[in-house]
Order: sequence, then structure tokens, then C-alpha cells
Amino acid sequence: MSIKIGIMGYGNLGKGVELAVGAAPDMELAAVFTRRDPSTLQIKTPGVPVLSASEAANWTDKIDVMILCGGSATDLPVQTPEYAALFNVVDSFDTHARIPEHFAAVDAAARKAGKVAVISCGWDPGMFSLMRVYANAILPNGKDYTFWGKGVSQGHSDAIRRIKGVKNAKQYTIPVESALEAVRNGENPELSTRQKHTRECFVVLEEGADPAAIEKEIVTMPNYFADYDTTVHFISEEELLKNHSGMAHGGFVFRSGTTGANQENHHIIEYSLKLDSNPEFTTSVLVCAARAASRMKAEGACGCKTMLDLPPAYLSEKSGEALRASLL
Amino acid sequence: MSIKIGIMGYGNLGKGVELAVGAAPDMELAAVFTRRDPSTLQIKTPGVPVLSASEAANWTDKIDVMILCGGSATDLPVQTPEYAALFNVVDSFDTHARIPEHFAAVDAAARKAGKVAVISCGWDPGMFSLMRVYANAILPNGKDYTFWGKGVSQGHSDAIRRIKGVKNAKQYTIPVESALEAVRNGENPELSTRQKHTRECFVVLEEGADPAAIEKEIVTMPNYFADYDTTVHFISEEELLKNHSGMAHGGFVFRSGTTGANQENHHIIEYSLKLDSNPEFTTSVLVCAARAASRMKAEGACGCKTMLDLPPAYLSEKSGEALRASLL
Repeated sequence: MSIKIGIMGYGNLGKGVELAVGAAPDMELAAVFTRRDPSTLQIKTPGVPVLSASEAANWTDKIDVMILCGGSATDLPVQTPEYAALFNVVDSFDTHARIPEHFAAVDAAARKAGKVAVISCGWDPGMFSLMRVYANAILPNGKDYTFWGKGVSQGHSDAIRRIKGVKNAKQYTIPVESALEAVRNGENPELSTRQKHTRECFVVLEEGADPAAIEKEIVTMPNYFADYDTTVHFISEEELLKNHSGMAHGGFVFRSGTTGANQENHHIIEYSLKLDSNPEFTTSVLVCAARAASRMKAEGACGCKTMLDLPPAYLSEKSGEALRASLL
Repeated sequence: MSIKIGIMGYGNLGKGVELAVGAAPDMELAAVFTRRDPSTLQIKTPGVPVLSASEAANWTDKIDVMILCGGSATDLPVQTPEYAALFNVVDSFDTHARIPEHFAAVDAAARKAGKVAVISCGWDPGMFSLMRVYANAILPNGKDYTFWGKGVSQGHSDAIRRIKGVKNAKQYTIPVESALEAVRNGENPELSTRQKHTRECFVVLEEGADPAAIEKEIVTMPNYFADYDTTVHFISEEELLKNHSGMAHGGFVFRSGTTGANQENHHIIEYSLKLDSNPEFTTSVLVCAARAASRMKAEGACGCKTMLDLPPAYLSEKSGEALRASLL
């Protein structure tokens, strides 16, 4: 019997979930919910209803897992506890500092309703978190490094767009190659913020704006750019749309650690992602987490989980027997 | 209360487990068991008894997890089911093709005794298996690549040592750099055995042996060398002991896959290990698996498991709360 998936929110993440559910032989899309007027949405899967978010409560017996595709800033802190009272849910909450409070709110709601909720799925938090936990457990004596990019940072692009005189902008976070190499070579460097990543900005000006003043405002912006080596390119809107509309991203997680009676043996664990589409990879992970949620619920589990709590085999549609025979 | 660990067998693996238990704040070494005369063994941890393997059955209430440090060829197929009837156990059984039958034998014994047994822990099988399972679940449409090395292959070194006229030998398995690059670049190459790895042999001859004949016998040896580009170096025994006694190893796991309505978005997942000591890294994983086994047992689980079944957080000595706050 296939796992029935609901999608709450039909932006980049919702569209990615739809594709990933379509690629999963053991799942079917039951319905898409939106806060917009449902009649304005055109989804890709034939025969699947598009409904108002306010109707979700009528679908509790037709959906096994609801995948919440809202944003972390304002949507998910409200939505995840709300829908965990009705459904097994999965979200991609990615504000690292606020995960403990989000976990507590979702856990209370899910426990009360006897549902399973898996939060903070994706690649960071998500696969990168898994890599950090495995590597720290195996090599308790060592040092962690996480690098992001090359990829677009939405928050930094937004910060530039808020500057007066800027019409549009995209900001790339780029890991410093020499820093990656030093970590890879086991040098265990102490790296400042500036030594880990550079920032490259592509900016479209409003008519009559002063490029020198705007460049200065960008590179000196506290928190966002002041601590980095930042390059600013002024380009036309056509060029921005043509060359900088992609959603590629990626990054690297390292653990550099030692074992031995005198810590004389050095080990390097490296995990990296190169992703053409950040939202499609993220949603591919969300869909695996939904599969695990439905299995854990079937076993009688309830409450809030993260990917750190999911047995890896539960993410796969293959049986334990098939996994042991082919991938172990 | 700390987890009490027993070690069965005190070769390279047993010694590595002893070091890894010493590095774990939540574990203590209870006893070391050996098939040799216990009085001939000198272990590193003060105050821990060294006992004959035949005495193990008297220790069932003093050991939480017994880590089995025998070899996969003949020891573990017998030992793991035998000791799973008495203890929670962990092993590093690494004969991939025979894992299903080993699993079945261990599962029957562990279920009957109400114990948890975790088999095939280490890095391949082990961490590499986890990477393959996660990556296949996330990217169902894609291609897997596993490369090993640079590192010593015990089986291939042994095969050379069995040749008449060879006094000693070490064989390194080396991944082909251009093949790694092609995979990393998303070219999805079809790679023959010869295109993935080369083999480099360091050989010490017996007095009067014919180097040309022995080189030919090595490079044409079916299964072991005939399908590879193999280089043979003849060196002195002093040189072999001085430069080729290390136990470094490592390797790479890739998944190259696509998502999107027309599979237009390409993603590369890469995991790699560079290990100064193959046995010490392997045993660091075994000890994490022992921690997970003791937690699963405390929750009422029993039967045979692999790393694919262990919730990642159970491998860590940190609480779920601490992991969410620091590593998620």
C-alpha cells in the first residue's frame, strides 16, 4: 500500500516535493494545500486536488504524512505544531539557533495527538548534521569544519536588495579553496570567518544610483559582509536573469581527528554535495523523511524526531533484506 | 552508569577497540578474552583481566556488549552466533557476498537469547554502506561508485606471498585519479575494473628466485591481478619493513544522480575517508555500534542489526538534546 503524501504550500519546495513523490515507487500524492486561491494554482500531477489550506483538517484520514513547505522565518514555527496535531508531518526548519524551541513546541503537539513529526530535514540541517554526528561519534578527538557553496544565499541577496538604489541582486557564498585544501591535508587550521568563505555579489542598480556608494554600503554591512572579502559586480537586469537565476548550491563537511595511544594516527572524513537545484535536493530528503515517519508511526512511535533519530534503512523504499544484499 | 565492554580476540582489532573504549567517556573495559594463553598477553589498560575465551560464559552479567575481534573468513561465522547466545555483540564481518547468511545465523541466535547483535560494522561494510543507502534513497535516479585506496589489501598481499620464491610482499590498491575526476565532474562514466583501480606490489624475493618469472606470475594471476594494471617493485626485506608496514587505507563513495521534471538537475554526493590506521578507524566504529547496541537492548530490542538499522544519535555519547543544540 503506498504512502499518501500531502503538500502544504506550493513554492519551490512544494514543487520539489511533488517531483520527488513522483519518483518514489511507494508513494502517491493525495492533495496539495495552499494559502492562495486554489484555482490559481497549476500543479504537474494529473488528477490530484488543489485545496485551500483551511480544508486540511478534513483530510486527516486520507493523508499519511503532510510535508510542510513553508519558510523557517514565520511559517514553520506556527505551521509545524499546528499540523502535527492533525497529521504526521515533515518540515525543513533551518534556523539552527532556534531548533531546540521549535523541537519542544512540535514535540508537545505531536505527542498529544499521537503523531510523528520530523523537523529540520534537508542538507544543512539534515545530511550535514548526520555527517557531523557520525564523524564526532567515531572520532571523539578531532575538529569539525563545515563550508558552504558555491551557492546563492537568499538572506544575503535580500540584504543587498534592501539597499536604496538597488533594483535586484544575487549573492554567492564561495568556500576558499586554500582553506579546503588545508583541512583536507590534515593541517587542522584555525580559520577566521574571512578565511573560510568569500562573497560575490551581482547587483542591478536603479537608474541614477551611485555604484561607488552602494559598493561601500555592501562591503561594510555588519554581520552580512563586513567580516568577509566581498566582490561586487554591477550588471544589467537581463544579465542577472540570464546568468544568475540558478538554484545551485552545495558544501563540505569535514572531521579531522586522531586515534592511537599517543594520538599518532590521523584520519580525515569528508562529505560534499554539489547540487544543481538546492530546493529539489532538499525536497528529495524531505520525502525520504516522510517515508521514515510513516514507518515509525506504524511501529507505534510518536513525538518530534530529527534525521538523527531515523534508522537509515527507513529512508529507503527497499526492504532490509534487499539493502543488506545490495548496498551493505 | 558506564557501558561495560568485553573484547574477544586481541589482534589489531582488539587493540584498536581497547584504545577506542579508553577514549569513550561513557564506557569501561571489563575484560579481554583470548584463545592464546592469557598469561602471554600484555594489554594496555591497567587492572583489566585477560582471560581464556573458554571463560566468557561466566561473564554474562558483567559485560554489556562483547566486541568480537576475529577475522571474517573463519572466526566470525562461528563466533558471532555463538556469543550472540550469551551477550549483546558487535562484529566487523566484511565478506559482502556472505552477509545475508551471516545475518540469518546471528539473528536466530540473538532472538532466541533476547540479545542485540550488530554485524558488519566498520567502514566498508559500515560507513560506506550508510552513504550508499542514504544517497540511493535521496537520489533514486542515479549511479553509485565506490573506490578503495590508497591502501594495503591483505588478500592481495597474501596471494603474492603464496608464490614460490616470494619471501614477503605488500600490495597497494590505488584508485585511478582520472576516474575519480570523471565521476566528480558528473560524467557518469562506465568504468571497467582496470579503469577504476591500479595495483602496486612491493615484493621481497627468496635467495636465487627469478624476478622476471615472478613478476609475470603476479601480473597474470586470475581474479587478483590479471584484470588490473599492476606494477611490481622488488625491494629488500629491510625496505619493506621500514616503508611498507603502515596500515593506512581509505576510499570514496559517490552517487551521481538527477532530479527534475526532465531529470535536468544533476547532483553529486561524495564521501571519502583518508585513514592512517585502518584497524583503529574500524574499531572506533565498532565501539560506536556497541553503544547503540546497548541502547537498543535497553529499549527492548533483540535480534540481528546492521548499521543501517541504528538511529544515528545512538552512536553518540551525547544526549539528543545536546546533539540538536550543537551538531544538528
